Amino acid sequence: MNKLEKYARLLVEVGLNVQKGQTVIIAAPVECAAFARMCASAAYAVGCREVIMDWGDDYLARQKYLHAADEVFDEVPEWRKNFYNGYARQGAGFLRISASDPENLKGVDPDRLRRASIASGAALSEYRNAVTNNGTPWCIASVPIPSWAKRVFPDAKTEQEAMEKLWEKIFAAVRVEDETDPVQLWHEHIKRLSYYRDKLTEYNFKYLHYTNSLGTDLMVELPENHFWAAGSEISKGGIEFVANMPTEEIFSAPKFDGVNGKIVASMPLVKDGNIIDNFYMILKDGKIVEVHAEKGEEILKNAISIDEGASYLGEVALVPYDSPIQNSKTLFYSTLFDENAACHFAFGEAYPMVKGSDEMTPEEQKAHGLNISKTHVDFMIGTADLNIVGITHDGEKIPVFVNGNFAF
Amino acid sequence: MNKLEKYARLLVEVGLNVQKGQTVIIAAPVECAAFARMCASAAYAVGCREVIMDWGDDYLARQKYLHAADEVFDEVPEWRKNFYNGYARQGAGFLRISASDPENLKGVDPDRLRRASIASGAALSEYRNAVTNNGTPWCIASVPIPSWAKRVFPDAKTEQEAMEKLWEKIFAAVRVEDETDPVQLWHEHIKRLSYYRDKLTEYNFKYLHYTNSLGTDLMVELPENHFWAAGSEISKGGIEFVANMPTEEIFSAPKFDGVNGKIVASMPLVKDGNIIDNFYMILKDGKIVEVHAEKGEEILKNAISIDEGASYLGEVALVPYDSPIQNSKTLFYSTLFDENAACHFAFGEAYPMVKGSDEMTPEEQKAHGLNISKTHVDFMIGTADLNIVGITHDGEKIPVFVNGNFAF
Repeated sequence: MNKLEKYARLLVEVGLNVQKGQTVIIAAPVECAAFARMCASAAYAVGCREVIMDWGDDYLARQKYLHAADEVFDEVPEWRKNFYNGYARQGAGFLRISASDPENLKGVDPDRLRRASIASGAALSEYRNAVTNNGTPWCIASVPIPSWAKRVFPDAKTEQEAMEKLWEKIFAAVRVEDETDPVQLWHEHIKRLSYYRDKLTEYNFKYLHYTNSLGTDLMVELPENHFWAAGSEISKGGIEFVANMPTEEIFSAPKFDGVNGKIVASMPLVKDGNIIDNFYMILKDGKIVEVHAEKGEEILKNAISIDEGASYLGEVALVPYDSPIQNSKTLFYSTLFDENAACHFAFGEAYPMVKGSDEMTPEEQKAHGLNISKTHVDFMIGTADLNIVGITHDGEKIPVFVNGNFAF
Repeated sequence: MNKLEKYARLLVEVGLNVQKGQTVIIAAPVECAAFARMCASAAYAVGCREVIMDWGDDYLARQKYLHAADEVFDEVPEWRKNFYNGYARQGAGFLRISASDPENLKGVDPDRLRRASIASGAALSEYRNAVTNNGTPWCIASVPIPSWAKRVFPDAKTEQEAMEKLWEKIFAAVRVEDETDPVQLWHEHIKRLSYYRDKLTEYNFKYLHYTNSLGTDLMVELPENHFWAAGSEISKGGIEFVANMPTEEIFSAPKFDGVNGKIVASMPLVKDGNIIDNFYMILKDGKIVEVHAEKGEEILKNAISIDEGASYLGEVALVPYDSPIQNSKTLFYSTLFDENAACHFAFGEAYPMVKGSDEMTPEEQKAHGLNISKTHVDFMIGTADLNIVGITHDGEKIPVFVNGNFAF
């Protein structure tokens, strides 16, 4: 079995954890057909009911945004609602093979993007809720396409060289190696992540205090009854799955109005094909009251202004500095990888990381400290000298990160 | 504009004749994405509302037939019904870029194929009726894929050579040339086909008498009030479109119980990946009472036995021997091309080629001489020395074909 086949099998058996008789939906760009076929074969090999393909194409998506009739962006056709909501209701496994030119939608009318996102958010809410609340197993993973590979490796002499380099970086990031069985490696990896997740939930910190030499000095309050998540999750139907591959982060939500201090980004942020670089933020009672960026400042200011919640934090995520992705020293221009390279925050919508929040209305979630927004944008702040001290409700100080890695 | 772009424009502007504000559905194998994108761009260029892709993949189709759960083949999911029936109801244009390995489904359980075909026939009947009765514009055309190209050119040294050869054959067949505008050539071609179509309908022959040196000697009775079709058609919405590209045939339906004599095939027939070659049939009062084939006789016998109507003829089609496809001396292993190479018949279902048949029940159509069957299989009988004499209701004999070509 070559590395590609190992990777396909990993996504099917660990990522989705496909069950006998279960329907599998594979979303993939047409350029990645060869790999999508391997995933389909791997799903049939474990006895899935049927594989349904949900093909996409960057080129046609861009053409649509540029040239389709204007009313198209406020509509979602009936068949598409049936497709996503129907399969989510059936408990199908959703595998997304994500591969996109980071600049594909650059220059497209942002109002069309916004309206399309609102329309599909409403029409596919049953599907989106199933995914957000783990009603059904899902997994996102990536494979290279030339436009993306050339963006990551602009100095590669040929397209093929860029593609091969990106494949090697991806294989390293997802722990697919020649000699070993990635399924076994992932079981160990998930066990390790679960250890930190459970430990953090147990400590039940009131604050995390971040400091490093870049100038980050931030006090992050955590909500009452918060918990941490990492690695695998359990679907409503009882299937253990891994929603993101790779995944290195252990994450929770901050108390949205309890964050104070200065955050300095440690990596560039790519937003709709634009780069925001060398930036920092000042937060007061949770609100981002100042932002400065050497590059892309206006784009960052717009991003935190799209609604009230966009200027508050919605995610706090811990990633050891010694992770395969950080070690690869590569900017992937893809959140899936880049967010697993380093400790990060997100501004915007919070995941429901407070016990019982599944059952709460948005207003109740907000009252428990969870931020509400239409956006959710990750940005990296982890460095080799990042220290994080946890402060318990009793005022006890416990080292969480020392020099970029877990202290316990 | 290169030949590929000319071809894409031809399919959109003449094949579908896409109108401003009209939705366009493009069905294409993922392997043909580059050409599908050109068609989409051509459709946006004439102001279509939106292009919706309906991607397919031979490999996944085969995997499904081999490995999916058995009940899958009796079902059509709700979203698929909505997709086809919904867009047909809206009057969308349906472009099918057909490219398939002729042997793709070889060895697949024929019962699964049969059940899937019955299930989709029932679930998508609104779409199928729209297409059969020209309720909405549609067009089928082909582009090469390696598996097909290698089948047509088994002696090509490389896959690339086979692909290039097949492209050249297809360009010739669809009148796409370097120097000329194919849209203009097609308008002339359609005019010429319409001339023969109208002339034949006007003659209102009672019989056509076929003879050639291969041994064909057949008297074909035509139904009362039959008419002929060719080239373009007009959709219910008034859009002139060309359903098949290439198209060389002028076709009608025989009186199913009025065909007598011997038909000798002039080219092999490819059925579900199997070849039937050097065959002839004896017909008595329309029924095929004897078949002999040097190769594939059992397959042919099965094909004419799947129901009562399968052993009667449902189509009579005239194609001049001097057609671009016949001149290319190529067996394409694709009905779209091969049926336009030579005069042919089909056994099985008749097109509704009797005036007023749109409004008739199947029983009434049958009473007017139109054959009914679940199958429809074309086979070629045209040769360079084929003669056809038309016999009018008054008994007058008029040469229709002399030495393989139209006599008028």
